[in-house]
Amino acid sequence: MQASILNSFFNPRSVALIGATNTPGFGYGIPLFWKRNGWLDRAHLLNPKGGEIQGKKVVSSIDDLPEGIDLAVVIVPSLAVRGVLIELGRKGVRAVIIESAGFAEIGPEGKKRQDEIAALAKELGIRLIGPNCVGVVNTANRFATIEIMDSSMEPGPVAIMAQSGVFGNILLDHLPAAGLKISKVATLGNKVDLNEADFLDYFAADPQTRVILMYMEGTRDGVGFLDAIRRTSRKKPVVILKSGRTPYGREATLSHTASLSGEDRVFDAAFRQAGAIRAENLQEMIEIARVLTTQPPMKGKRVGVLTTSGSMGAMVADAAFGEGMRLPSWKSETVERIKAKAPGWMNIRNPLDIGPSGIFRPACRAVFSDPNPDGFILIPVIPYAAIEAWIRLGVKIRDMLGDWPVYREKIPEKPVIAILLGYKDYMEQIRDLCGTVVATVSSPEAAVRALSALHRISPHSQCP
Amino acid sequence: MQASILNSFFNPRSVALIGATNTPGFGYGIPLFWKRNGWLDRAHLLNPKGGEIQGKKVVSSIDDLPEGIDLAVVIVPSLAVRGVLIELGRKGVRAVIIESAGFAEIGPEGKKRQDEIAALAKELGIRLIGPNCVGVVNTANRFATIEIMDSSMEPGPVAIMAQSGVFGNILLDHLPAAGLKISKVATLGNKVDLNEADFLDYFAADPQTRVILMYMEGTRDGVGFLDAIRRTSRKKPVVILKSGRTPYGREATLSHTASLSGEDRVFDAAFRQAGAIRAENLQEMIEIARVLTTQPPMKGKRVGVLTTSGSMGAMVADAAFGEGMRLPSWKSETVERIKAKAPGWMNIRNPLDIGPSGIFRPACRAVFSDPNPDGFILIPVIPYAAIEAWIRLGVKIRDMLGDWPVYREKIPEKPVIAILLGYKDYMEQIRDLCGTVVATVSSPEAAVRALSALHRISPHSQCP
Repeated sequence: MQASILNSFFNPRSVALIGATNTPGFGYGIPLFWKRNGWLDRAHLLNPKGGEIQGKKVVSSIDDLPEGIDLAVVIVPSLAVRGVLIELGRKGVRAVIIESAGFAEIGPEGKKRQDEIAALAKELGIRLIGPNCVGVVNTANRFATIEIMDSSMEPGPVAIMAQSGVFGNILLDHLPAAGLKISKVATLGNKVDLNEADFLDYFAADPQTRVILMYMEGTRDGVGFLDAIRRTSRKKPVVILKSGRTPYGREATLSHTASLSGEDRVFDAAFRQAGAIRAENLQEMIEIARVLTTQPPMKGKRVGVLTTSGSMGAMVADAAFGEGMRLPSWKSETVERIKAKAPGWMNIRNPLDIGPSGIFRPACRAVFSDPNPDGFILIPVIPYAAIEAWIRLGVKIRDMLGDWPVYREKIPEKPVIAILLGYKDYMEQIRDLCGTVVATVSSPEAAVRALSALHRISPHSQCP
Repeated sequence: MQASILNSFFNPRSVALIGATNTPGFGYGIPLFWKRNGWLDRAHLLNPKGGEIQGKKVVSSIDDLPEGIDLAVVIVPSLAVRGVLIELGRKGVRAVIIESAGFAEIGPEGKKRQDEIAALAKELGIRLIGPNCVGVVNTANRFATIEIMDSSMEPGPVAIMAQSGVFGNILLDHLPAAGLKISKVATLGNKVDLNEADFLDYFAADPQTRVILMYMEGTRDGVGFLDAIRRTSRKKPVVILKSGRTPYGREATLSHTASLSGEDRVFDAAFRQAGAIRAENLQEMIEIARVLTTQPPMKGKRVGVLTTSGSMGAMVADAAFGEGMRLPSWKSETVERIKAKAPGWMNIRNPLDIGPSGIFRPACRAVFSDPNPDGFILIPVIPYAAIEAWIRLGVKIRDMLGDWPVYREKIPEKPVIAILLGYKDYMEQIRDLCGTVVATVSSPEAAVRALSALHRISPHSQCP
């Protein structure tokens, strides 16, 4: 039943926009987006002035709307929202997104307005998203209640839940370049009705979604929220970025989405127990998501590291310690195999630092064949001048570093992550080499945290 | 006197390469680089087999080298280094870079070899960089003892000191795309003779260098090193990235450059007291460096924040709390000025979250005129679909967000940082708007840590 009402938000048969306009802003951008994406036929635009927008006739009152509208998107000023809601209720609309700001986030007066609206919606049997949000996006049917760049509408496995509208939107802009594609987005705003738990359950059941990213500032129903995370993270990884970690941040979130963001340590422990993965910052959230969409869960905590840079190897070791991961020794067969190819100065340990020896290819095959690690981090950072010299001689990156996708076929159950750093053409070449089977990240810390996340979603993990 | 010997490394009148070859590797790449950069005339190449490399005659023994060579670069196998050093001493060479690996980092046998070399150099009056490094780079005279991409040789204000050769080299590859240009690089390796303190003093006096970045794994002479940081950071900011922070990392650094990386908390406190800026990770080090090369020191700890995203504002607030920075209130005049332009829903606080109101331009002028903050963070994250709508109407980014470089002229003594996130074309446009006078970073955390760094280098800071 919850799922069916959420379906009205993500898959409406018809939609009304209350507050369409002909001047830049939401009221202009949304009809434009609907036109570009084939939704204008199923849309009704409303503005008291009437007229035409994007070639579509505008109705001047809610009374003039047809019956049977699945979803209304409201972008009128906050003072007018109450009246709109009453009329929408009368029309039988049961799903409403209030994008307008000017509610609890601005203080007591706004809070009063918000409480009135919440009570009214309940009375009218209307389910609400918002206020103070930009609603939803569904890439599968190209529906959105905000104008989105076409580049962000390519369907993918990542669902996003953001408390804030602008932030959700910015994430959408940012993700294509970061190599992530989206299934659905929900921006929740002040959450007078539908909240994180509702959308977690919906995304958990959504066949298009494989990973859930969540930006939150706080929650009103902590118990219900943690229960929902627990249910969801049994099926799909949930990565959470939370602000309001400190007194300053808490004050800022209060005036932003009127959230009580609570004690950070409490959230941290609760998230972990409930099986969620907490990201330290936005970039890490994005990189972890990229790994989670392509790599298998990691059965144990043992990481094998192959690096051309001892420094980067040491950074991975530091990060592994911090995350409670382990760096197992290599089997003696592996050590022998590497020794046979290695110059005398090489120290055969884990992290395995091959320096400028040029033996990445045989070393990669050797470590992949070692049963001790449960997952691997490759750090093929090589000065590009050296690479160029080889390329000039007709040697390919694949010949130098090994054909990772092929080697990897023998260990499909183990995640493999490459850390990229260096000259941009080289990073492009490594990305090509990785293809879709080896994940890439930009830092030792992100690599280790991503493996730790893959471990936590494994059925073999001790965590729930 | 120290400076004059270091000058032989960065500005040699003549240089010899012991171990030049015609097959890919250091022995091939270095002569190639020297040829491309006009150094082959001042170079002598040595290989027992003789012959020609890059059109230059190769001498077959050190005896055959001319007198008066300023610098020798040694890349022969570790077992041959001792003999080479004796012959170089006999030839009167006083500055030697040993790039060869196979010393203390591989264990007791290598350590013994390294101790012999150290004693020998002392006896012969030779100053050493290395072993296990790639020596130096000087962009001003286009000299380097390793092959470097041309894109990394454009002169700039950032000096780099890295313990590890590959890592120093990778940094060089990576920095042009990150917007940083280099003055000099020193890679120190196992540091049997010249160490961090020597190069800190040299860079402190180097007119081309304005900011010093340092990657270290550990030090043997902690007191001398901290003294050098103290001396240097009075003149120029020193940003340190240190690995070996944890037991795993310490073990890795031991086998990498034979460093005793010590207790992390001890280093952390000592760095701070000595006036250095510690970066959490590589990306942060790069972003802080970018800010330090363009922004003035920050007199106090008070940060003014203007944002279109409440979420990003909250993240800045969290980071500010963590760094001990403050978020002052706006003056009542500022609040009035903003109120006159703002819609009713807006909450006029610091961070000032203007949401989708479109008043970035007047809000920016208003907050810049407020005397309370000592520095500013701008977060102009706007969904690109909205930007595009304005661009279609002929409105420019500068008109929407304000002409920051012009506004900024009135507050030259205050740092201004913009956080970029979103669609890549938009980030490019914001970078254009910032020009060279507003620094850009990619995360709330980097913005705050960079301001904190600018405060610590201020003469008004309480820190030494």
